[in-house]
Order: sequence, then C-alpha cells, then structure tokens
Amino acid sequence: MERNNVIRIKCADQKGLIARIAGVLFSNQHNILVMKEFVETATNTFFMRLEVSGEMNEVKLKDELQSVLPAGSQIEIILRQKKNIVILVTKEHHCLSDLLVRHYFNELHAEVKAIVGNHDTLRPFAEKFDIPFHYISNIDKDRTAFEQEIIATVIQYKPDYIVLAKFMRILSPAFVAAFRDRIINIHHSFLPAFKGANPYKRAFERGVKLIGATAHIVNDDLDEGPIITQRIIPVHHYDDLADMIESGHEIEKSVLADALKMVLEDRVFVSRNKTIIFA
Amino acid sequence: MERNNVIRIKCADQKGLIARIAGVLFSNQHNILVMKEFVETATNTFFMRLEVSGEMNEVKLKDELQSVLPAGSQIEIILRQKKNIVILVTKEHHCLSDLLVRHYFNELHAEVKAIVGNHDTLRPFAEKFDIPFHYISNIDKDRTAFEQEIIATVIQYKPDYIVLAKFMRILSPAFVAAFRDRIINIHHSFLPAFKGANPYKRAFERGVKLIGATAHIVNDDLDEGPIITQRIIPVHHYDDLADMIESGHEIEKSVLADALKMVLEDRVFVSRNKTIIFA
Amino acid sequence: MERNNVIRIKCADQKGLIARIAGVLFSNQHNILVMKEFVETATNTFFMRLEVSGEMNEVKLKDELQSVLPAGSQIEIILRQKKNIVILVTKEHHCLSDLLVRHYFNELHAEVKAIVGNHDTLRPFAEKFDIPFHYISNIDKDRTAFEQEIIATVIQYKPDYIVLAKFMRILSPAFVAAFRDRIINIHHSFLPAFKGANPYKRAFERGVKLIGATAHIVNDDLDEGPIITQRIIPVHHYDDLADMIESGHEIEKSVLADALKMVLEDRVFVSRNKTIIFA
Amino acid sequence: MERNNVIRIKCADQKGLIARIAGVLFSNQHNILVMKEFVETATNTFFMRLEVSGEMNEVKLKDELQSVLPAGSQIEIILRQKKNIVILVTKEHHCLSDLLVRHYFNELHAEVKAIVGNHDTLRPFAEKFDIPFHYISNIDKDRTAFEQEIIATVIQYKPDYIVLAKFMRILSPAFVAAFRDRIINIHHSFLPAFKGANPYKRAFERGVKLIGATAHIVNDDLDEGPIITQRIIPVHHYDDLADMIESGHEIEKSVLADALKMVLEDRVFVSRNKTIIFA
Repeated sequence: MERNNVIRIKCADQKGLIARIAGVLFSNQHNILVMKEFVETATNTFFMRLEVSGEMNEVKLKDELQSVLPAGSQIEIILRQKKNIVILVTKEHHCLSDLLVRHYFNELHAEVKAIVGNHDTLRPFAEKFDIPFHYISNIDKDRTAFEQEIIATVIQYKPDYIVLAKFMRILSPAFVAAFRDRIINIHHSFLPAFKGANPYKRAFERGVKLIGATAHIVNDDLDEGPIITQRIIPVHHYDDLADMIESGHEIEKSVLADALKMVLEDRVFVSRNKTIIFA
Repeated sequence: MERNNVIRIKCADQKGLIARIAGVLFSNQHNILVMKEFVETATNTFFMRLEVSGEMNEVKLKDELQSVLPAGSQIEIILRQKKNIVILVTKEHHCLSDLLVRHYFNELHAEVKAIVGNHDTLRPFAEKFDIPFHYISNIDKDRTAFEQEIIATVIQYKPDYIVLAKFMRILSPAFVAAFRDRIINIHHSFLPAFKGANPYKRAFERGVKLIGATAHIVNDDLDEGPIITQRIIPVHHYDDLADMIESGHEIEKSVLADALKMVLEDRVFVSRNKTIIFA
Repeated sequence: MERNNVIRIKCADQKGLIARIAGVLFSNQHNILVMKEFVETATNTFFMRLEVSGEMNEVKLKDELQSVLPAGSQIEIILRQKKNIVILVTKEHHCLSDLLVRHYFNELHAEVKAIVGNHDTLRPFAEKFDIPFHYISNIDKDRTAFEQEIIATVIQYKPDYIVLAKFMRILSPAFVAAFRDRIINIHHSFLPAFKGANPYKRAFERGVKLIGATAHIVNDDLDEGPIITQRIIPVHHYDDLADMIESGHEIEKSVLADALKMVLEDRVFVSRNKTIIFA
Repeated sequence: MERNNVIRIKCADQKGLIARIAGVLFSNQHNILVMKEFVETATNTFFMRLEVSGEMNEVKLKDELQSVLPAGSQIEIILRQKKNIVILVTKEHHCLSDLLVRHYFNELHAEVKAIVGNHDTLRPFAEKFDIPFHYISNIDKDRTAFEQEIIATVIQYKPDYIVLAKFMRILSPAFVAAFRDRIINIHHSFLPAFKGANPYKRAFERGVKLIGATAHIVNDDLDEGPIITQRIIPVHHYDDLADMIESGHEIEKSVLADALKMVLEDRVFVSRNKTIIFA
C-alpha cells in the first residue's frame, strides 16, 4: 500500500485560505494529488487534508503555511511511514485476531508493537504472531495502580494510537488525558443506544431488529467520544442472545478495522464530540 | 396481489402441537401452503402462521383447532380481504403520500378509509386521491377532548389499524387502550436511541454516522412499543441537520411501508414488548 | 432547499491548477464554500466542482478561469436555479409517482415540465398534479417516426434533462445524440448483470440472492452508459417473480431519485463510460 | 455452539405431508424445536428442515418417515456433530485466514482437516494453526493429473465439504462429480455479473458503483452453480483497482463464512441451479 505524504490543516475559516495554501504548495513544487476540505459552520473551523507529491522540506513548508494561515492554526506534515499501535484486550478474540492477521499479511498500515491484556486468555494466539503480550491483571488493584501499570508498559512502545479491541475496563480521565484523541475503542452497539454495560443483552430484551457496533475516539465520557464509524446487522425474533453476540462480533471487527484504517491514514479530524472524515 | 386465507395461533407450547394442528387441517381437506412457527422459550409460547388452500368453514375449523390446543389458545382465522386503515398525520407529507400513492395504484393491501390531521396542511394532497380528510386541531383543547374527537371520527370507519404517519402528538394510555396493538407508528430514529422529541437534531449534535427509522406498535410507554422494522442510512460530517432530515424521510417512509405490509399480511405477532414476524 | 452557485471544471491535469483556480476566485471576492476535485490518472483529467458565495460576473469569471487553465478546458458556471426535466414513461407508475410527489412538495430540485408516455395509462395520475401528459404511441410507427414525434414534443419544453422513468423502448443513437449526456435511465438490475429485457425474470431463474437497480446516463450502447447509482435488495427462495418485482420497484424509485438529485445538483461528471460524483 | 439433531426431507409435494411427518415425530416422542418448510411450485417439490429433541433411533425413524412419504423421498437424519472440511487455496490469504481463526477459536462448526494449495504461499500461516498443508502445484501437469493428485490427497480426510477459499483453478466436471453438491466456492463478483476471470478489473473498467461477492455450490458450469449468499460493498470514482480489491476481500471472506455456516448447519437445499435456505 504505497502512501503519499499528507498535510493536515485545522484553523479558523477565512476567505482565501485555499488560494493561499495551494499557492504555498505550488511555490514549493508540490503537486496536489488529493485535496479535501470542510468548513464546520457551527465553529467556523476550516479542515483540510492534502496528499502531495515531491520531496518535503518539512520545516520550511510548515513555516510558510503558518505564515499564510490564521494565528493558532494546526498544521501537521505527515511523512509516509507506518504508525505504531498497542492493542488492549480482555478475553474476546475477534477484534484482536482480525487486526493481527491483517498485520501479519502487511495489510494493517501499522506496526502492532504490543498487546496488553487484563486477562491472559489471548496470549497463546498473540504469540503465534510473535507480538509481545503483557498480562496486567486488574484483580486486587485499584484503578490508578492498574492504569499506571498499563501506561508504564504502553509508553515504552511509543504508540501513535492505542486500540481498545474489546478491552472491558473503563479508563479514567487521567488515562485518557495521557493519550488525548489517540485511543480508539469499539463499542458493541449503535451508539448512543445501549451505552455502557451489556448492550447485546439489553438489545435482546428490547426486541430491536438491528444491532450495531460503533468505533469511536475515547474521551472522558463513557461511550460519548467522537464517533468514527458505525455499522448495523439485522436480527430476528428467532435470534437468541448468543446468536446476537455471534452476529455482532462480525460487525465489531469490521467496524474497528475500518475506523482504524481511517485513523492510520490520517483521515480523521476531531471537532468537539464529532469527527470529520475525509474518506 | 392474490392472497391466501391465513390461520394464526398463539398458545402455550407443548409437545405434539404441530402434529395436532396439521392433523385438523388435513382432516378438513385444507392444504398447507406455508407454515411458519416459533417457540419463544422465555415465555414458553408457541406462535404459528399458516396459509392454507380450500374453502373454509370458520366456526368448525376454529372449534376443532381449539379442541386440540391448550386452554387459552388464541386462534385467528383470517379470510383474504383487505384491511381498513385510518391514517393520522400532522404536517409532514412523506409517509402519507407514500401510502396514498400505493393505495391509489392498489398496492397497499388495505383500504385507506380516512385521514385525520391535527393540521390542515395535507388536505389538498389527500383530496387529490378522494380520501376523506378530517382536520381536528389540538389547539385550545385538552388532550382528552382532542383524543375523544379523534376517536369519534376514527371509529365510524371501523379501522383494523390506525397508522401514525408522522403524527406528532403523544397519545394517552386511554387512546392506546381503545386500539390495543392496532396502532402503528413511525419514529424517526433507530430506537432505543433518540426516543422522544427532535431525534434528528440530537443525532446531528451527537455526531452519529448512521441515522435510522423505526416502525413499532404503540403501547403506553412512549417509543417503547414492540418494534416491527428498523432501517438506517449513513450520514456524513458534511450533512447538516436539513440534509439529515431529508435523508431520514427516505427511510421513514420505506420502513413504515414495509412494517405496514407485514401487519396487513397478518405476519406480526406481539409478545410482551417484542414482535415475532413470519416474513 | 437553498442552493449555492456552482462552478464545474474539467481539463487536462497540470501542477498548480488548484492554486490558479483558487486565486481567480479570491481575486473576484468569491468565498469557496465547498471544493471537491479528482484527478483521473488513466486519462490525466482534472475534475472540480466548487460551491462559491458572492454575486457572479459570469463572463468575466469564465474568461479569467479560462486564461489560467489549459487549452480545451470545460468551464461551467451554474447559477442557482431549478433545472427543467421531461419524464418519459410506459405503464409502470412507481418511478413517475415518486418524482411527481417530490415535485408537488417542492423537493425535487427541478421543474417537471411534461410527461411523455408511449401508453396512456399514467395520464390520470399525472393530471392530478397538473403536469402536461403527451401520449405518443409507438404502435404502427417506425422507430424514427416515433422518436421524431417525441423529440418534437420534448424540445418545446427546453429540458435540461430527460428522465426515463421505466420507459420501456430502446432509444436510437440519433435520439441519444440529440440529448448527449442528458438522458437519465433507471434499469431494473445491478448492471452489468441482466442487461436488456426481463431482468427480474432472469434473476429469478438464476436464483440470485440479491436483486438490484441501476441509474445511468444513456449512451449508444444499451445499458452500457455511465452508472450514477446502484442499489440492491435481498431476495429469498420463497420470493416468486411477482415478489421480486414488487421489491425491486422500491429500489428502482429510490435509486432514480438519488441519481437525479446528484445530476440536478450538478455533482455528476462523465468521463468515457464512467461517472465522477462529488457527493 | 450447542446443536440440535436435524432432519431434512425433500420429496414430491402432496397434501397432508406436514401432518404425517409431525405425526411420526410425535409418536417417537420427539419434540419439534424448529420446523421450516417450503414448496417449490415450479418443481412441485416439498423441502423441510426440522430440529428435534430427544434420543434418536435413526433407522426406525427413517423407516417410519419413509413409509408416510412419497416414493423417492430423500430423508436425512443428521446428528449434532461437526462436519469435516478440506480447504483449497492459491495465494490469497483472506478467506483462509478468516476460516482458520474461526476454527482455532472453535467458532467454525467444522473440523478443518487439511489445506491444499496449488502454491506454497500460505503454508507458514497454516502451520501456525497446526493444520496439514499440502502443496500440489499445477505447473507442468495436465489438469487431469493435477486434479487426481488433489483428489487422492483430499479423500484421505473424508471431508463432508470442500471449500474453495480463493482457489484460482477451474475444476473439471470429473472433479465436481466426485464431490457432488459438496464443493463451496467464493467468487469475487455479484454473479451473474463478471463471471470468470478478473472480475474486479472488469468492474473497475465498467465503472460500477457496487462490487460484490458470491458464495455458491460448484457445478459443471463455471460460476453458474446454486448461489448461497451474496453481498455487495459500495465503491467510488476515487477507488482504483487496488482499492476495489481491498474492499472486495472484506466481503469475500464474510460471504464465504456466512455461506459455510448455513451449509454446515444443514440449512441449504439444492434444487436444480438454486438453493433453498432455511435460516
């Protein structure tokens, strides 16, 4: 999967932004391969993602872009290289195994540096793929100690993103703050329906005809973070709870994989509790 | 759309029910064209829908079926004839117009006997199709008086079902009781998400990537009745609230039409707050 | 549905195009509200659609854009006004009725100027909506005479687009040439499967588990024109041919409506036998 | 995944079949947990699948059923035990890896006895899961010799089904005859579109807006066997061929897994070139 260099801009909207940005790129001999932009009117914010050709002088380019953009603009210049991720799991395998297989066949657009499990269940599978597996139990530990242990383990891998692949513990604001906008979770419902625990059980009891899965960026409010991707699958009166869970796993893993692809390709911007996604 | 006669059975589950029912039908010279059954284990309830051929002696058949089924069994024998419906609306046309067009071209499997609007907005459209339109305002009226006026109007048409085609008033338990399990509503969200007022606005503010529509049978709890059909449609960061509403209307009308088709073909059973649907 | 003015550009790709175009717009005091672009590498063609604010001096703007773009560039400046359409039908109502209801409630983004039917079947429905209905039979006429009669009728309405809403006659290359890239057809299969006659019957006989509908721009090759939109709906072993047709009608009308919306909003470019669609 | 014993019946349709079958089951003390039936009118064939409780005397039950059914009836009594499968592959991993992961976590409802590859590419992956991998090249071999070698390898595992998980060689009628209705293939298009070679390339060149995948039972006509499951995924003008292939792999593996689940649960009947599926 050959990648282009990417430039991302987030700034206050003004007339003439595109002309100025395109002018800087042209004067630096960059060809614009793909340009996507969006203005969020509610916040008067301009978002842009560019793929450009040509060798990059990052410092010079960033300086020149900054000089033509409003004060406080966020400019990211991202060279084509794989991101590093660490995956947190509990006992369920389906999201982890999906990601590890993609990784093994070089389809994930990321390096899986390590796996952290609060159970040891998935170690044998992880070890087939030679990925370090850290078992950090939450038993007989307060949440702070548990999370500190995870953080100490995770940061040594310098991850760009942390992926919660059915990690069934709620993370504290302190943990979230340590990886602001860099934790991706999969929740097994079409949020905001069935936030919190046991969504399939509650879906079964409610008698819904669709179940869903939602990948989102984690923030301080449980299951309230910016949504990246959602998908649903029909269920029927003859599906019992076990059937629903089995069906749901299919969309959980595909939704997480899709969302992660968007994130790893630098297509996702966060604006308050929403995402802007340049597919 | 040629229809077969339908037999519906709901009773306590027992061993041998199918043999006994099939035996009665065979001895009465009926051929079973379609048989669908389901046992809800949580309530130990047996549900069956049959389509059968042959002239029916309804009384004899019902008696014989009753004699081989457990006490308290519900047996319905439904001859192939169109149901009557009355449609309640407010201002939005999309569900009403969809139903009236189907009705005009003889595709609805029902007779639309009348329309009741708490606004007069849709009268000109309704009159194109020669359907009586009753304008019953809720202004300057308490809910009881308003609902009594609707009931008085509706019952003269002897409807089998009342269809709330974007009727934006909440019905009281007394009204619901008058048409138990015979009021079909369309709600503009994938329930249980966004129950109550302004679901599109709340969906927009939440930043969901799917919006939905849900057709359900009305019970005493707002938007909590047994769900018949749900559908979703993707939305994007560049969709504003008006775009979401426009997209949503597409699925609202198709979900209501699908659900109504299931109801009118006698395919829907209610069990507590769920539906069993023999498609 | 408030609309913005639109600028569309199709030209040979070059480095610096975006900077030049954005520069012209900025110097003319236009704010770019939405910019979408795509480079088709196989043909080295650059496509752009812009929505811009501000009063337009069309001649000046076009001249200035032309001066910075490669020779042979196609530049369209499209003011926000409704397009005119003429609809051709045979006997089936579902696409026509869908469009007429949208038109009646001012949701179509177009003026339906007239309907032409090679049968008179749909006249009563059309007349409910006060749309001129022209019955032009193909019986006892050669195709040239038949088509000349249609053309003579259609051109008096100066349509921007001709919509084939289940018009069941094949149009000659001469007819197509008279309205190049301006005829929109709905075909009742997911093309390229089941090109030509009786797609539902052939789908039924093949035992497919999905049926589809395809809206496309008509060119000289039957059912081979550039595809705008496609949709599918599942079918089951218990669906007979009539059921498939009934299901199929639901997606035919929604696919045609969606495609027409894209066309009427000037979002569709044609490149050889493909479309580029800036949603 | 606890399973029930299954009874499958295929016979000429007659009045009274259900009563007779249910009577035999009742007299043998079996409770019918699930009964699904279908009459294919075109062939006057009755299909039934039952899940029943209670210990089975297979010989007695089959004899009694045979005695009440028309001559030539096919009766299968299938005890709840896992089927055996052998998987044939070429170089692409996505279907194989999906199946092996499900198998490893005991979710496949089958024993994967062996893998046969006409390339050796996937051996390292297969060996992670301790599944025998047989490399049988087709190079420098005529088809008959190649297929004989495969058959000799496969039959030692006594497979119930052979799964072609992106096996890119066409099988001869002789091979197909050796495993009549027991070879499941995944084809990377929504058949009957893009039969044969290079469906993604042809889809890209045609400019379709949907691509698909089809799981079917293999018969003597290439890509013409009875279809079990089909699914589609949208594509866009900006998707190049590599993007389409990447997207397509997602539905190929899910369609194959779904189809295989239906087959392994004995839910699929074949009637001429169609399937009847009791979901």
